[in-house]
Amino acid sequence: MSVMDFHFDFSSPYAYFASTRVDELAQRHGRVCRWRPMLLTPAFQASGNVRLIDQPLKGAYSRHDWDRMARLMQVPYRFPDPFPIGTVAAARAFWWLDSTDPVLAKTLGRALFHGYFADNRDISQRNVVAAIGAELGIDAAQLLAAVEDPVWKAKLREETEGAIAAGVFGAPFMVVDGEAFWGVDRLGMVEEWLARGGW
Amino acid sequence: MSVMDFHFDFSSPYAYFASTRVDELAQRHGRVCRWRPMLLTPAFQASGNVRLIDQPLKGAYSRHDWDRMARLMQVPYRFPDPFPIGTVAAARAFWWLDSTDPVLAKTLGRALFHGYFADNRDISQRNVVAAIGAELGIDAAQLLAAVEDPVWKAKLREETEGAIAAGVFGAPFMVVDGEAFWGVDRLGMVEEWLARGGW
Repeated sequence: MSVMDFHFDFSSPYAYFASTRVDELAQRHGRVCRWRPMLLTPAFQASGNVRLIDQPLKGAYSRHDWDRMARLMQVPYRFPDPFPIGTVAAARAFWWLDSTDPVLAKTLGRALFHGYFADNRDISQRNVVAAIGAELGIDAAQLLAAVEDPVWKAKLREETEGAIAAGVFGAPFMVVDGEAFWGVDRLGMVEEWLARGGW
Repeated sequence: MSVMDFHFDFSSPYAYFASTRVDELAQRHGRVCRWRPMLLTPAFQASGNVRLIDQPLKGAYSRHDWDRMARLMQVPYRFPDPFPIGTVAAARAFWWLDSTDPVLAKTLGRALFHGYFADNRDISQRNVVAAIGAELGIDAAQLLAAVEDPVWKAKLREETEGAIAAGVFGAPFMVVDGEAFWGVDRLGMVEEWLARGGW
């Protein structure tokens, strides 16, 4: 089945909002959505950008926009503290699980997003990631071992480098047959692209 | 009649695309769209941003996205050369005309956008601005005098500073009753906001 790639960092509010829509969107067009967590910091470095929250004017706008967009999309959200955070543990845990159970990996991914952005759980902490996993029946000791495993460290690094090499500079970043769409505000455009096969 | 402010720089492709929609959008909700040309460079300086075209990764994405968005919106467009350009003459001419004939000023604004982005006319040159104005029956000598008039120099400077003080960091930038929306991809959200009176 053809895919729709969904590149993101677990620390991005816009990616969280998109994550509540991408799977159904892909399914409506006979595709499977492939979640691809990465680290945004190297992507920002590569593209000369800084975190939204640190930008004068745009930072204040974004913070207001997240609240407004959450209400519009009816997605549970509160501005988390701390923000932003490192998502190495969350992303490695996802990739580890994805290698054996992609469906459960997505379930974990949704729970991590929800835990951080709706329940203010600090998923930069590996113990929090493990606790969220445990609530889904995922073995906490195995998850914590995977987070430290060189295999999953390398996987996340490669994923991030590969995404940047493919042009990913922000999140969410959707790619369909090589066509790239950046931002949750482009989900409508992605849908149009899939429905019409481009234009 | 209440207004919808439309802040933009004549050098912004996304603002050009938005300019083909904002008036009808405002009218559908009993508003008048107020065109407010400004200079983006000081806004970029204030917000720590650089021009899209100069950004690694994002520059290439944007250039592709402009082509794609023009096709989707069915707006005549070709990537102009040179790009980007200074728009001091275009913006001053607009404000000069707006002081006496706001309807004609918008007509000139549309013609300037179209001249640059559809017909590849270099509107950074005051003579080109005057020629486009003359095609609409606007006196070229008066327009050229206005472009050099301290009154309109000051007006553009104040407009730009005022926009930045109000939080404008990019274009197009629409403001409705103090609610700010950045980007052509937010026109749908503006419409929703106007239709529902916020959410």
